[in-house]
Amino acid sequence: MATIGILGGGQLARMLALAGAPLGHRFLVFDSAQDACAGQVASLMCADWRDFDQLQKFAEQIEVATFDFENVPAETAEWLTSHTRVFPNPAALSVAQDRLQEKTLFGEVGLDTPIFAAVDSIGELRAAIEKTGLPAVLKTRRLGYDGKGQFVLRQHSDVENAWATLGGVPLILEAFVPFDSEISVIAVRSRSGEFRHYPLTRNWHRNGILSASLAPVPVDGELQRRAVARARALAERLDYVGVFALELFSFDGKLLGNEMAPRVHNSGHWTIEGAACSQFENHVRAVLGLPLGDTDARGCSVMLNWVGELPDPTPVLAEARAHWHDYGKSPRPGRKVGHATICADSPEELIERLQRVGRALNRDDDVAPVIDVLANR
Amino acid sequence: MATIGILGGGQLARMLALAGAPLGHRFLVFDSAQDACAGQVASLMCADWRDFDQLQKFAEQIEVATFDFENVPAETAEWLTSHTRVFPNPAALSVAQDRLQEKTLFGEVGLDTPIFAAVDSIGELRAAIEKTGLPAVLKTRRLGYDGKGQFVLRQHSDVENAWATLGGVPLILEAFVPFDSEISVIAVRSRSGEFRHYPLTRNWHRNGILSASLAPVPVDGELQRRAVARARALAERLDYVGVFALELFSFDGKLLGNEMAPRVHNSGHWTIEGAACSQFENHVRAVLGLPLGDTDARGCSVMLNWVGELPDPTPVLAEARAHWHDYGKSPRPGRKVGHATICADSPEELIERLQRVGRALNRDDDVAPVIDVLANR
Repeated sequence: MATIGILGGGQLARMLALAGAPLGHRFLVFDSAQDACAGQVASLMCADWRDFDQLQKFAEQIEVATFDFENVPAETAEWLTSHTRVFPNPAALSVAQDRLQEKTLFGEVGLDTPIFAAVDSIGELRAAIEKTGLPAVLKTRRLGYDGKGQFVLRQHSDVENAWATLGGVPLILEAFVPFDSEISVIAVRSRSGEFRHYPLTRNWHRNGILSASLAPVPVDGELQRRAVARARALAERLDYVGVFALELFSFDGKLLGNEMAPRVHNSGHWTIEGAACSQFENHVRAVLGLPLGDTDARGCSVMLNWVGELPDPTPVLAEARAHWHDYGKSPRPGRKVGHATICADSPEELIERLQRVGRALNRDDDVAPVIDVLANR
Repeated sequence: MATIGILGGGQLARMLALAGAPLGHRFLVFDSAQDACAGQVASLMCADWRDFDQLQKFAEQIEVATFDFENVPAETAEWLTSHTRVFPNPAALSVAQDRLQEKTLFGEVGLDTPIFAAVDSIGELRAAIEKTGLPAVLKTRRLGYDGKGQFVLRQHSDVENAWATLGGVPLILEAFVPFDSEISVIAVRSRSGEFRHYPLTRNWHRNGILSASLAPVPVDGELQRRAVARARALAERLDYVGVFALELFSFDGKLLGNEMAPRVHNSGHWTIEGAACSQFENHVRAVLGLPLGDTDARGCSVMLNWVGELPDPTPVLAEARAHWHDYGKSPRPGRKVGHATICADSPEELIERLQRVGRALNRDDDVAPVIDVLANR
């Protein structure tokens, strides 16, 4: 029995604790919020990220530390590394936190990316546009998520407005990719170096926030093989330990690296019921150095995200092989408060279930594009 | 979001809390032991079963109470019923707790049983033997589990010894049934009256304690239909709400009622990974009046119980579709400390996995009879 410390106590920590408990492990969650939802299923230590007295107590009670939230202050992660084992290692975390370092590394392992350039001044922004062309997306290099910290430039006259909105912190300008689809590779690497990946997942967003994921997604076998090979190369290069998500744009028959999330990922939630061993259990296994679990899909699965507030669970609960996840968080606009996963043995069966759920919950817009892919339309 | 109170904080409460958390519900466990293992994943209130001040506080914090442990003092269950909603209802619990009432009810719903007779004196024991014949099993009417509180009489001269061992509390004598196999029906009835059942499970014991379960077990369709109809009739007769197990002896082409366990049951642990919706989640749904979940089996599954101490988890973790459950309890002879469930799409695949696990853990004796059934030997 080990006690695993988790920095951040949101729904990812909550699902890690629920997945690790059957293996006999205990979880101690560190969060600055008293009502962090993982505290409902694990022990919670509530303190400021820079309260080193409390971090000392945290480190003394755990065998290994990991993350629900990668934007922990760098000094906190570094302090912890000198007091306990931390997976993934803070150097890997730091690369994944910085869009410029991340994209540079993508290139080094042979993963194509949209054209990009570092931007630290309005002059550099103008120069960068020459390289990327327009439209282009200006992003903060650090601390962006769910579409936050981004500005789409469509014409040269947008430069001042973009700079006024985001300027003052390190930025990156990326060519706008009119991608066909967003795909993610959820993969895991263990302390022993063992590597596994789940089948590729296709993702849909609404207002910059993930709204639906489908897995396995039909992708050309060679493309899939290459995407997984790049994910593995990334993990090995970073000596990465744990689950991570590599987000890719599918564009013009190619996959382009968008970003790497150094943790269990929203687009992998379907693995709880849709794979033999979930991303959460595999993350626990990886950071403890246990054998990794089976990542094969069991049939096909769609995850629907609940953002802001939960819909009525009844239509989902009434559906065969549909699973409800309420994170125990209070509703708030833009907040991820839960999800549902709907599984089936065949695309046809999945389409029927999705149609019923979409209709009952008034979510036809979310399920329609997923149904189109399942029906090969 | 509801808070569900559970009387008893062992592994059943632990697995109920882990299954109910994704639905957004919270659990408050009441147990007389400070180290009750459900306390690792839910809030624990530690007090004596008859501490009505603490029970008052317990009742005030919950929407509904249920049981991990049916041998709660009757006065505790009755007190609770007048202070909160309690499922299953204490009257149903009380029938299931008493082997004489239970077997009488079995007869009333058309379920055959071994011949039995009430025994309250050594004279009645002698008279009962005339009815049951020998061998016969003398059992306490209440508080027996895992083979405790039982004495097998093989000859008339055993009467004194049997009486000296068990006499003084209400007893029942049952004809000894040289059964071919023990089968259980895990079923669930909701507050709305909705009824579902899992496929029949076959069970093996070692030293009176469940050692392995296999599901679905090949049973003649008509036998299965009748067993399920009897289980349903029992539940309706008792206005039972929640999951229960009906244990049956398969003997001479018939199924005989052995006992009813008024709670989630060890022989249903395979449903966590082997069915779409586990017995634990369905119990939570039932006591909250939510739609019941899909009870179909996903492939075939074998559960192996870990009694006394846990073996090395590595061979199980290394196997595809094998799942480890460590209850977080300290080892003690005869104590259930965990289980593993091994799933597969086909009996052949399951046999291979069982052979590897049995060999690696030195449990060939436990897996051999299961493999024989899977191989139709």
